[in-house]
Amino acid sequence: IHIAVLPGDGIGPEVTREAVACLDLLSAERGLGLRFTEHDFGGVAIDRHGEPLPPSTLAACKKADAILLGAVGGDRWNGCAERPEAGLLKIRQELGLYANLRPVEVLQGGQWSPLRSEVASGSDILVVRELTGGIYYGEHRLGEDQASDLCTYTREQIERVAHVAFRAARSRKGKVTQVDKANVLATSRLWRSTVDEIAKAYPDVALDHLYVDACAMAVITEPRRFDVILTENLFGDILSDLLSVIGGSIGLLGSASLGSGGPGLFEPIHGSAPQIGGLDIANPSGAIASAAMMLDELSLGDAGAVLREALEATLLSGCRTPDLGGDASTSGFGAAVRDRLE
Amino acid sequence: IHIAVLPGDGIGPEVTREAVACLDLLSAERGLGLRFTEHDFGGVAIDRHGEPLPPSTLAACKKADAILLGAVGGDRWNGCAERPEAGLLKIRQELGLYANLRPVEVLQGGQWSPLRSEVASGSDILVVRELTGGIYYGEHRLGEDQASDLCTYTREQIERVAHVAFRAARSRKGKVTQVDKANVLATSRLWRSTVDEIAKAYPDVALDHLYVDACAMAVITEPRRFDVILTENLFGDILSDLLSVIGGSIGLLGSASLGSGGPGLFEPIHGSAPQIGGLDIANPSGAIASAAMMLDELSLGDAGAVLREALEATLLSGCRTPDLGGDASTSGFGAAVRDRLE
Ligand SMILES: CC(C)[C@H](C(=O)O)[C@@H](O)C(=O)O
Ligand SMILES: CC(C)[C@H](C(=O)O)[C@@H](O)C(=O)O
Repeated sequence: IHIAVLPGDGIGPEVTREAVACLDLLSAERGLGLRFTEHDFGGVAIDRHGEPLPPSTLAACKKADAILLGAVGGDRWNGCAERPEAGLLKIRQELGLYANLRPVEVLQGGQWSPLRSEVASGSDILVVRELTGGIYYGEHRLGEDQASDLCTYTREQIERVAHVAFRAARSRKGKVTQVDKANVLATSRLWRSTVDEIAKAYPDVALDHLYVDACAMAVITEPRRFDVILTENLFGDILSDLLSVIGGSIGLLGSASLGSGGPGLFEPIHGSAPQIGGLDIANPSGAIASAAMMLDELSLGDAGAVLREALEATLLSGCRTPDLGGDASTSGFGAAVRDRLE
Repeated sequence: IHIAVLPGDGIGPEVTREAVACLDLLSAERGLGLRFTEHDFGGVAIDRHGEPLPPSTLAACKKADAILLGAVGGDRWNGCAERPEAGLLKIRQELGLYANLRPVEVLQGGQWSPLRSEVASGSDILVVRELTGGIYYGEHRLGEDQASDLCTYTREQIERVAHVAFRAARSRKGKVTQVDKANVLATSRLWRSTVDEIAKAYPDVALDHLYVDACAMAVITEPRRFDVILTENLFGDILSDLLSVIGGSIGLLGSASLGSGGPGLFEPIHGSAPQIGGLDIANPSGAIASAAMMLDELSLGDAGAVLREALEATLLSGCRTPDLGGDASTSGFGAAVRDRLE
């Protein structure tokens, strides 16, 4: 089983290193046969190859069984023709990764959350974000005195990601909340009618619709009312980052980007945080959680669950990086997780 | 001084009634000479005139010195050719109300906030949202299997609202945070470069830029770091609703929509909440806060400040509607505010 590893920029390499070390240990212990190759991606690829997604990296990803990504970006590349983030948008599109799954759980009764414990505790939400359509991929025009971005969706783009959300809801609490701005946008109306249509095939799943402004409020005031949130690309970007705070740190969360058939891409939802890159203080939990999602997706038995349990046990034991008020280092935290795996 | 009152739908009429009664009392006490006329708008106007913004209402608003609006919308009008919200978009455009000001303050050390008190307390943020451009007003196309919405901005649209934000920052903490998604959108890049340009005329104001996803997180985790948030129409919609929760109830907040020269429009930021319409339990604080902003804008001395103080004193005295855990009625709360004005 071949894993293409794209460490990327900022804290990307150090958090990815810990995740790979965990995978390597699990693979040896359980004979999973994981094999890793590393490739340039993002800002570092701009520096070395002149573009954020070099053809060699793309080719390696296409051949891989799964892709583990760190993070990309940084002010250093602000002046470049193509920025590191363009690589991210391109790889999602090239691999057809249309469904981005971002699970949020509140550990420890929400003690790390900026929300009051009685508001946050017990929340367990999965954001299913459409990842290869919408305003991210419509025509962008930038003139001297005028600019425009086009947001488009086809029925088919909505249908395929809606199926992902409904299927996920079946193995969870059986509820999908579709989020849009249907009182203003035409694409949102197409989302609503298409999702209503798809819902008929899932009579066991409850569906409701919410405007994005109301949803931004509700995820903070009553997060427990949500199960699966299904939404378009831009709203999903905003809402999943927002949701990450209810767990206490964006450093805790992983994500999976899946398409139809090809390799999935697994990455923490945090950014590259260049200001702390290389300091060995970043939280590798998001990268490790992403690795666990990858093991699930590769159908490697309970390996994903085992890794997730080791991660949670480590956090609950008090070993924590500075973003959670602790003083563990990135490498120290990773080693502690591996101690539990052994 | 002529105030056009548009009560609208759901709880709109009952909260507006309390605000008007407060204004009436203040006007009598201080000889402000306020005069009110009421007009159909929103769903109620669809029922009576077949459209959400009838010409007679628009004409009355254009002649008025200021407009006090309740709220519009409700599922009842879902099937209509033009929905109640279309009236809102149309009146903003017709009157050229390009700057929407939404102040958020945390009263009482944040005791009503879902955020921990130590996170919320002391926050004081003004959202300046562009209100007549962006994806709200670009071409909307809805086909059978495809839909699109166009987001456009001109330099001039950005400049005029940026001036509003920088001027506001001068009389506050002197900081503007401009929010966009410049790593993806062309319009966001035009926003960034235009705002950077305008900032040169305000060397006493500090400017920074933030991506909308990062901003959604930061307003919850460290709200005190913000002073003025300047952003485009859709991001402003989401962020200002989100921000409203840090104060504890969306029912507390008012807003002002201003253009160049003509009458301003003042409305609570909450919606029409049809499920509780007519029950006399809605919080009229947002409508009263909007009325206070209107008095400020009409340059009626300290009348706005006096109304705001009476409102805050009433809230702090323990007279509260159910959204804040109290049992005051809408009309009872309004009467309590008027008692303090006397
Ligand atoms: C870096 C950026 C383009 C990206 C996005 O908006 O998709 C990121 O915020 C994310 O959520 O993965
Ligand atoms: C009702 C809707 C069209 C409106 C908007 O999005 O502008 C509302 O949410 C608001 O914020 O005033």
